[in-house]
Amino acid sequence: MNSIVSLSGGMDSGTALAWAKEHSMDVLAIGFIYGSKHNPYEQECAEQLAEHFQIEFMRVNLTDIFFNLKSNLLLSGGEIPEGHYESDSMKQTVVPGRNIIFASILVGIAESRGFDTVVLGIHAGDHVIYPDCRPEFFNAMNCAVRHGTNEKVNLKAPFLYGDKSTILKYGYKREFPYHLTRTCYKDQELACGKCGACTERLEAFRSIGEEDPIEYEDE
Amino acid sequence: MNSIVSLSGGMDSGTALAWAKEHSMDVLAIGFIYGSKHNPYEQECAEQLAEHFQIEFMRVNLTDIFFNLKSNLLLSGGEIPEGHYESDSMKQTVVPGRNIIFASILVGIAESRGFDTVVLGIHAGDHVIYPDCRPEFFNAMNCAVRHGTNEKVNLKAPFLYGDKSTILKYGYKREFPYHLTRTCYKDQELACGKCGACTERLEAFRSIGEEDPIEYEDE
Repeated sequence: MNSIVSLSGGMDSGTALAWAKEHSMDVLAIGFIYGSKHNPYEQECAEQLAEHFQIEFMRVNLTDIFFNLKSNLLLSGGEIPEGHYESDSMKQTVVPGRNIIFASILVGIAESRGFDTVVLGIHAGDHVIYPDCRPEFFNAMNCAVRHGTNEKVNLKAPFLYGDKSTILKYGYKREFPYHLTRTCYKDQELACGKCGACTERLEAFRSIGEEDPIEYEDE
Repeated sequence: MNSIVSLSGGMDSGTALAWAKEHSMDVLAIGFIYGSKHNPYEQECAEQLAEHFQIEFMRVNLTDIFFNLKSNLLLSGGEIPEGHYESDSMKQTVVPGRNIIFASILVGIAESRGFDTVVLGIHAGDHVIYPDCRPEFFNAMNCAVRHGTNEKVNLKAPFLYGDKSTILKYGYKREFPYHLTRTCYKDQELACGKCGACTERLEAFRSIGEEDPIEYEDE
């Protein structure tokens, strides 16, 4: 298996990178610049993670495309809501088609460069809010990708049926450097600790009895 | 139905635009700049078609993304082969993931702007060479899109089971302006009449007893 990993710099895609590294001959990580508020900060983490795992890291700029999409997650949208992931207000952070677009570009690059697998860090914690993280989406998309590439490329989502706790357990067993990840959705250097993404991350660390090694603004 | 049409400027997507116009309240055509050799010439046609049908036309630039993809169809690739579409050499013109990428971006824009349908001009004449034009790809992709957008967006391909003759018959019944379309794959003003795309187009016009209204270089 030769894998391309979609690497945002968060704990999910970072751990997916560790999974890919463990299961692949060759790994390439790709980070998308797409105009989300937290994009510059998470991309720094993505770069550090790629360096940590000693793999090639490539950036693909989608700013012009995502300029046409509507979401509060993007710089062009409204405020990032605070509170729990499952609350209605977090739906404002859905970026229409984001994972469909990310996956399809990764597939094109994979086939062009002879990689047979595209690895995504999506998981069950995202299922409530984000339709393009759910198993029914993922499985249909994988089917489309296999047909659309003459079976040359497959999608894999190692944590599709797990959640952030599953991901952390997998990572802690392998001494994953979670201090190099960033999950917060806000446009600020330090993670806020209050948005849906921070809330879910902090809960996951608590659930496995570990302390989140990154700094939060209200500490 | 409110439709976004992927409009290359060729006869297939042009006729798909006519179909969309006939079946939709509102139509937006999107043309991709993606670094194919014939892209500048076909995009001129796309603009003229949008003007003819009096609909909004939007360009989305994917050059930086497609720079990472390998195909002789692209400026970064080798020569465009001549001969029939079904010949092995025409496989060099496959752009890995092209329709997956196009469809996914159109879906993101559709959901963001409140369009419920994305219309593609793919058809059976492309099935042999291009895996991302086949019904099994299209149906899986449509399934992924429906799941990935909470059923807000659908794909439609009115000519999926037809070929270029079917398309022309549909268009001629409606006085479609085929003089405004361009199909040739080569990087030149006049259509060559010899590449797979030209060969298939000319055969289709012959098959329905009409003369292709565009000019070819060896006439």
